[in-house]
Order: sequence, then structure tokens, then C-alpha cells
Amino acid sequence: MNNISIIGAGRSAGACIDYILDQSVEKNWFVTVADADPELARARVSGYPNGKPAWLDVLKTNDRRDLIERADVVVSLLPAHLHLEVAHDCIKMKKHLITASYVSQEMYRLGDEARDRDLIFMGEMGLDPGIDHMSAMKQINDIKARGGEITAFRSYTGGLVAPESDDNPWHYKFTWNPRNVVLAGQGTAQYLENGKHKYIPYSRLFKEYRLIDVPGMGEFEAYANRDSLLYREVYGLSDIPNILRGTLRHRHFCEAWNALVQIGLTDGSYPILESERLSYHEMMEGYLSRAQGSGSVKERIARLLGESVDSAVMQKLEWLGLFRKKKIGLANATPAFILEQLLLEKWKLQPKDKDMIVMQHEFEYTIDGEKKESASTLVMRGKDAENTAMSKLVGLPMGIFVKLVMEGKINSTGVNIPVMPEVYEPVLQELETYDVKFTEREVSLS
Amino acid sequence: MNNISIIGAGRSAGACIDYILDQSVEKNWFVTVADADPELARARVSGYPNGKPAWLDVLKTNDRRDLIERADVVVSLLPAHLHLEVAHDCIKMKKHLITASYVSQEMYRLGDEARDRDLIFMGEMGLDPGIDHMSAMKQINDIKARGGEITAFRSYTGGLVAPESDDNPWHYKFTWNPRNVVLAGQGTAQYLENGKHKYIPYSRLFKEYRLIDVPGMGEFEAYANRDSLLYREVYGLSDIPNILRGTLRHRHFCEAWNALVQIGLTDGSYPILESERLSYHEMMEGYLSRAQGSGSVKERIARLLGESVDSAVMQKLEWLGLFRKKKIGLANATPAFILEQLLLEKWKLQPKDKDMIVMQHEFEYTIDGEKKESASTLVMRGKDAENTAMSKLVGLPMGIFVKLVMEGKINSTGVNIPVMPEVYEPVLQELETYDVKFTEREVSLS
Repeated sequence: MNNISIIGAGRSAGACIDYILDQSVEKNWFVTVADADPELARARVSGYPNGKPAWLDVLKTNDRRDLIERADVVVSLLPAHLHLEVAHDCIKMKKHLITASYVSQEMYRLGDEARDRDLIFMGEMGLDPGIDHMSAMKQINDIKARGGEITAFRSYTGGLVAPESDDNPWHYKFTWNPRNVVLAGQGTAQYLENGKHKYIPYSRLFKEYRLIDVPGMGEFEAYANRDSLLYREVYGLSDIPNILRGTLRHRHFCEAWNALVQIGLTDGSYPILESERLSYHEMMEGYLSRAQGSGSVKERIARLLGESVDSAVMQKLEWLGLFRKKKIGLANATPAFILEQLLLEKWKLQPKDKDMIVMQHEFEYTIDGEKKESASTLVMRGKDAENTAMSKLVGLPMGIFVKLVMEGKINSTGVNIPVMPEVYEPVLQELETYDVKFTEREVSLS
Repeated sequence: MNNISIIGAGRSAGACIDYILDQSVEKNWFVTVADADPELARARVSGYPNGKPAWLDVLKTNDRRDLIERADVVVSLLPAHLHLEVAHDCIKMKKHLITASYVSQEMYRLGDEARDRDLIFMGEMGLDPGIDHMSAMKQINDIKARGGEITAFRSYTGGLVAPESDDNPWHYKFTWNPRNVVLAGQGTAQYLENGKHKYIPYSRLFKEYRLIDVPGMGEFEAYANRDSLLYREVYGLSDIPNILRGTLRHRHFCEAWNALVQIGLTDGSYPILESERLSYHEMMEGYLSRAQGSGSVKERIARLLGESVDSAVMQKLEWLGLFRKKKIGLANATPAFILEQLLLEKWKLQPKDKDMIVMQHEFEYTIDGEKKESASTLVMRGKDAENTAMSKLVGLPMGIFVKLVMEGKINSTGVNIPVMPEVYEPVLQELETYDVKFTEREVSLS
């Protein structure tokens, strides 16, 4: 095995491609980097003798198959909905496949076929999902090996702006898909508390955040993810009475985001009619009714939210420009899209800004009748807007895993996520050489 | 022209099919009634010499085309998403098409092809949409003909239970698609007030209802529909500063439905995990957090809603059985589906129950500088659970329109909704012979 095809060379693909190309000379790998934009692919491989760019429209079946045919291992950095076509080709042509995306039900259904052909299809091999699975499993298996019975597992991840680059009242900048940030949490979050199912509907999600203490960093706010229960079985925690996955934000973010939710600005389901003719001010006025009485739009929005007009929340709304008489200038746009476009500008990472990833797992367990509590925490900063901690932590695990497969060190087959020791142990170990280190602390409560 | 094919013979199709079959002997029409259930089709035509049943799986292209081929006019009573296939066949085989469903963008795109072939594709030919368009257009054109300038148009429709059959605390029973009732209003309602765009997000929709006075019937609650602005152009009201379409409910419905929305029970986007193992009581408890303190689940839900524990709203929730320890017994069910299944039983129309349709249009306009206000109102009761006002008012307009087309009285071509005098005048006139009568009243405000 010495051929790797990487599909997708967009901005978030840098760290993964760089890792693989860095290894390619020594390991004698030949690496094809394919993208719809041939310039992008060329730029990515530039300077690497074993790297070759390719121009690929992934929807052109024959071109896609040619690319996959020449590889032993395929890395798909495409948007999630495009992986399945690639996966079918990989089954047909007997190629291993690696992605950072959530594994869909359709993908899981290819498990038997992949296993029959001795192939590994590894999904969720990025940061969240990815490093979260690996670092949690290491802790879980470690506690179990010591005879511990785990009674609570809570896991929090945030893609944030580093405090030294935090210069806006929201204490947030985009480091990943803005659309997902705007629509986050719609539906109902589910988790387990004291053995009981708990639900938080979207309308209360950003009110019912909890405060998480991160050593050396202070407190963060965490709101619950939709999918806390999904990994119980695969983590070996089927009967655990407490399980929660959450998303971290800097302090005072959630109450302000909740204001946007309550006003109605995160609805992505229906376009605002004649949105191109309206100003932000007119749009905001549109959400008001007689119940808010008279006064300026800002005063009435404050009343709608139960805020004083100069509260921290209202200052955040004002800073976004929501009360300005500037035209929205977007036709047929949903409120969520209008908000996203506004935030894109306001929450843009500036060239020298550093982002910061915070991940923390919290466990409660008993060993020999003694109640214990432990936490393991990763805090990592990026270098600048181009070299973010986010892209590094999404890309490196894929790169390292590709190496393990190329070296024949992976025996697992079928459709998987990285929860097995033969994957998480070498990947976490090598990540440490890139300063991706979890610090652990343990306290006894009894 | 003497052949009619009716596709779909389900429960809601009765009034339309009966009307057409009743006319078929005198007019010498041959009517084929097709359904996936051949018994249903047979029962519908039973006793009518010119009626013929057919067994049709509408997704089987050849069978569907055979059925359409033999008709001059096709009536599609299928679920809305299945009309388009039928419409393409009708284009190909040059047949007129009539439905009661909302006309989709894809359907409108067939307009030129239909017009080129001298065909009429009439959609929204039921009650709401249907009779609402026709009765509104009659009023609008009447006011305009008298030189009036319309400054406000508000239109309300409700499919309700008649007061004499109203024996539950919600004052509501299902007379139409229960799923649509449970999911109603999700997204953002948009309308115009004093020339300004107004938005009501779902989270406030059932709080911000208005009270509508219906002569002889008292007050009803109306919540805003999503689509108030859609018909401005086609109604000839492009520059109107006030336009609103709303849905009517009996008094005290909206505040209680709002409680279900606030709890989170109308979310249809994600299944409750392990829903088959839970009781209603456990599900309700799942929505509570520490913020509601201690006490029984009922007490804490009351606290969540800001209600006293024995309030009218809480009594309605209790009456539904939401606090019972009975198992839900539905696997992989969303909150909305669990609620729908519960309501199906609780809000079922009993055999002798009468339903009631209320439709009211309200206009403000000026004639010769004088400000005027008028309203036109339809109140109609059904006979029993089998012969509902709902099915009659949805089916009769289609039946009458089929007759007009068969008699060559319709000159319009293309894809349409019933806003033209050549359609609404004869249809409304004949509807009066079935006691479908609007009463009009006019007041001068100046």
C-alpha cells in the first residue's frame, strides 16, 4: 500500500493534508489531492514531490472512480452528504475510507460489505466527533480496568476564541461552519440525569445552560447537545444513570443568544417576504406587537425580552447592528440566514486572532465503595486565523489514522468510529507530540 | 366530453364523489373512481349506474396513465405530494386537472404547457384554500366596483366542533388532518399591519392570538397563519397596508395549546429515545429542570408554565392524560407524534357529533372619503361524524367546478386558483343551494 487519495482541499482540510504530505517522502507514499478548484489542490501539494493535484467534480462518477481506483486509502473531506457515493465506490473497488463526519445510518448499513472485504471505513475521526470519542474511551476503559463503576459521564467541547483575541461583547468568533452555529440546538436536547430521561426544547436550551469550571481558565457556559444518549452503547455505558454531552461558550454568551432565539431570529425554515427591501430596524420592529407598548424599537425589544434597555444582552444586540436602519439587502432570506450573514462579518476571525478549543470530560464513579470524581481537560490555542486549533484538531487525527492504516497497524474492519484501543491509543499518543494533551485530575468526594 | 376520472376515494373524498355521481346520469357522464383500496372505490360508486370502480396504485406509471387516458377531466384527491406526477400525465395526454391542495411552485411551472394545450389545472378548489379565495374575491371585486379602496383585509377560517357537540374542556375535536393540527404554525407567521411587516415566531404564536366576533356565535380566538401575504397579488391587493389570514379556535384553546408548545410537546423533528418504555408521567417529568424546584410533576409543570396547579390550562393538560403513569407504548416517536396519538383518541368526533366551519372575511375601505367596515361570515354545521361540514365544503366546490368544465363554461386556461369571476360566481351561487351562504354586514365608522 502506498497510494492515498484525498478528496476535498478546502480551508478546513489543511492540517490533514499537510500531515499526510509531510510523511509522504519518508514513507514513500503517493498522495493525490483532488478538489473542484484545481488551483486549491495545486497549492496544497506545492513543494511536496510525492503530492499530485487533481481536478475533480465529485458528482462525475467516472472521474471520481478513477481517483478512488488509484488509491489504497481514501480520505473524504467533502461535505457530509457527499460521503455516501464515495463509500459505495470504496466498497466496489476495495479501498479503505476515512472521514471526520458523523456516520449516517446509510453509512452504517455498508458495515457488513466493508467487513466482508476486510476494509475499514472510519468515520467521526476529527475533533468533535473524533478526539472526544478517543479521549473519553481512554478514560472509561482506564476507570473500568481499575475496577471502577461509572455513574456519571459528562463531556463538553467548545470551539472558541482565545481570551487574548476576545475583543467583542459576545466573546465569540466563528472557527467552524457558521450555519451550524446559527441553527444549533433546534429540536429537543435529550440526556440522562439520575437514571431519568431529561428533555430541553429549543425554546429553553440557552436559558438552561450550566456553568463548567475549567482549571486555569475559569467558568464556561455549556448548553446540552441533542445527541447525548447516542453513544451510550458504543462507549460501553449502557446502564449509566447520568450522561450528557454539551457545547461550551464563554460566559454571558448563552443569555444573549437566547435573546436572538426568543425574538425569532434563528428560524431557518421560512423566508422573510420582501427581505431585500427591509432594514434591520424594520425587521426587528416586525417582531413587536401591541403587548410591548410604545417607544423606540430598541425599547420595545428590551420589553419583549424582559431586559432593561441598556442591559448587557441589549448591548450585544445593538453591537450586532440589529437596530440600524441599514438595508438587509438579501432577497428571499430566512431570519437565520440574515442573522448568519450579519454574524459572518461581526464574528470573523481576524488574521492574527487565535482560536481556542476546550474539551472536558467529567466522570463520577465508585471504586471499592468509594465515590470518586475525575475530569480530563484539553485546552488548545491556534496560531492565527489560518492555522486554527480547530483545523489542526480536526485534521491531525485523520492524518495519523491514515498512517496507521497504511502501516497495516489496524485490524478492525467494517464501519466504525474511533472507540477501540488499537485506534485511540496510538492516535492520542502521537497527538501529544503535537501538544494535544489532556490533563487529568481526580478528587475523592467521600 | 363525458368521462371523469377521480383518483382517491378516502374518507375526505365522499362529498366530491357523491356530487359528481349524483349528476352523472342526467349529464350522461361516465365516472371512474380509483383507489389503492378496491373495496373503497367499489363502495363509493355502488348504486350509480355510470360509476365504475378501479384499483390503482398511483405510483405504477402505466396503470395511472391508463386511467387518465380514458378521462376528459381528472380530479386528484391524492395527498398533495402526489399531484405532480398526475399533472405531468395530464399535460402529456391533454386532460383538465382539479385538486383541493395548495398549488406548489413545481405545479405553477406547468402553467405555460397547460395554457398551450388549452387545459385548465385548477388547484386550491376546496374550503381553505378554496371557498376562502372565492368568497373573498367576490367581496373584493364588489367593493372595488363600488369605487372603494380597500385598506384592510383579514380572513379567518376554523374547522371546529359545533357548540352542541362540544363536550370536552379543550372545545376542539379533529375534523381534518390531525398531524397538521399538531404541527400548525411552526416557523414564523408573517402579515402586514399599517403597511409594516409583522412577524410572530412559533414560540409566541399561540400567546398573540386575537379575539374575533362572529355574529350570533360570540367570540373566537384567531392565530395568524404563515402565509398571509402570499395572495396579495392574485387578490389584486398588492399595495394593501393591512392583510392577515388566521385560524379560528373556540375560546381558551390557544392558551392551553401554548402550554403544550412551551413544554416542548409539539416538536416533530426528533424522536424521544426509548419512548416505548416511558409513561406519559415520565415524559412530562423529563421536561422539568431544577429551576422548577420540588413537588409533584404536575406542580412543577404548572410552575414551568407560570400557572396555578388547578388553573383551566392545567385542567386541560390533566384531562389529556399527560400526568398518567400509563405507558406511551410507541417506539421511536417524536413528542409531536406521541401528542397526536393521544389527541386522536381524546379529540375524536363521536358518531353523532356535528362539526362546524366558521369563515369570516373582514374589510376596511374608503368610498368617497368615507371610512367603512364590512364583514362576511359563513357558519355551517355538519350532520354527523360521517357527513361533516368539512368534507362537504372541501368536496362540493371541486364537484361543481368539474361540472362547469364538463359543460364547457370555463374559458380560463393554465394553472390557476379560483379567483376569477367565471369560476367563483357560479360556484358560490350553486353552493348557496346547499346552504353554504355568507351573511354580510356593513358598518360605517366615520
